Amino acid sequence: MNETLALLMNHRSIRKYSDKPVSEEQLAAVVAAGQMASTSSNVQAYTVIAVTDSDKKQALSRLAGNQAYIVECPVFLVWCADLYRLKKSAEPHLGDSPTYEDSTENFIVATVDAALAAQNAAVAAESLGMGIVYIGGIRNAIAEASELLELPELVYPVFGMCLGYPDQEPGLRPRLPQPAVLHRDRYDPGALAEVKTYDEISSAYLAERTNGANTAPWSQLMAKRLAEPVRLHMQDFLKQKGFMKR
Amino acid sequence: MNETLALLMNHRSIRKYSDKPVSEEQLAAVVAAGQMASTSSNVQAYTVIAVTDSDKKQALSRLAGNQAYIVECPVFLVWCADLYRLKKSAEPHLGDSPTYEDSTENFIVATVDAALAAQNAAVAAESLGMGIVYIGGIRNAIAEASELLELPELVYPVFGMCLGYPDQEPGLRPRLPQPAVLHRDRYDPGALAEVKTYDEISSAYLAERTNGANTAPWSQLMAKRLAEPVRLHMQDFLKQKGFMKR
Repeated sequence: MNETLALLMNHRSIRKYSDKPVSEEQLAAVVAAGQMASTSSNVQAYTVIAVTDSDKKQALSRLAGNQAYIVECPVFLVWCADLYRLKKSAEPHLGDSPTYEDSTENFIVATVDAALAAQNAAVAAESLGMGIVYIGGIRNAIAEASELLELPELVYPVFGMCLGYPDQEPGLRPRLPQPAVLHRDRYDPGALAEVKTYDEISSAYLAERTNGANTAPWSQLMAKRLAEPVRLHMQDFLKQKGFMKR
Repeated sequence: MNETLALLMNHRSIRKYSDKPVSEEQLAAVVAAGQMASTSSNVQAYTVIAVTDSDKKQALSRLAGNQAYIVECPVFLVWCADLYRLKKSAEPHLGDSPTYEDSTENFIVATVDAALAAQNAAVAAESLGMGIVYIGGIRNAIAEASELLELPELVYPVFGMCLGYPDQEPGLRPRLPQPAVLHRDRYDPGALAEVKTYDEISSAYLAERTNGANTAPWSQLMAKRLAEPVRLHMQDFLKQKGFMKR
């Protein structure tokens, strides 16, 4: 196994950070690696906001559900899907021609572009000895977070990402058995049977991590999650921001 | 610069593949690395379909706009957002409780999960000497492609990905200057000025690649793209598949 594969296979999310700062050079290297990820037709439809201002981190942490590591980490990255840059760059060339930045297709393009860049950045950070954790909680109060970050139309925060040096070494979380997620030539509904195996694996893992206090199998945790009316504001918010109007 | 950073900084999309096959072990390693990417609350809401059947690759290539490399590459991966597995796994636990797999929030979660896994897989493949190119064209005729792959409700192909050994060595495509995409503490509309610099860089790059035949600056190419009514079927298609109903 090469060094890169070993690194990828060793990923764990970090929720406790040491005081060690992230230098400008390191931040630049992490974002540069993000920029080299694939991007749909070279649109590069994302922007990342590096939040280091302590008040702003505190406010974002509050909005994201009081996750302490957002405050503790030296740099909080907010990965945004950004069609505003594209629209503004195109305007001088277009006159009165209609444009389609408001399509669901372009929403997907921008969201995927942000995710690919972020994941490259995550791998780069880990290769430099840093750790990360993705923060979906930035979407909890997405309107307020967007206002705080002064996001214009056609820009939305897809997720946050804490960046810093780890002050913990959590265990590797087992994933679904590969046959559950890797299908051949067609979607195989029979692969659902693998969930039963994973329920046992994930329950045993949880039991060990919680000294037996929690043994809920994965499917039960997922049921709880699906039954929660989480972030139902997203569709209205995105439309107000100019996304997915058609 | 460590080995992983060097690899990330050296990414280029590969559109010509040698005859060398991808072994089962290599495919398993690539997908395993994908599985280790972060996933929102461990939902792992994606499935990847490895298409090796020659007729099926030919059909998908036709549907994606006749891209020859989809046929030539030994394995064509179709990365799908998958909330079907979650829904089916949760059902036995839920009785008649309402569930929210049809929310825009869960659509984003599944799309991002697929993208993070795919990007990890791309990095793993490159570390093993293989090359990849993302295929957004899978969304050109997304209903037909989904039928061909027998995708159930709540599953959609986010993008395809050719996988194989490179038979070309394309140049590195320059990205936007970092100040265009990396902002500090808030979104900076002034960063748009960087586009002018990039227009010069990208125009010079294109001129060199096309022996002077094409010198269009980036912003002009982006204008052309934004003015195209591309894949306007996406919203209707996704709703029919059970996504984003609210």
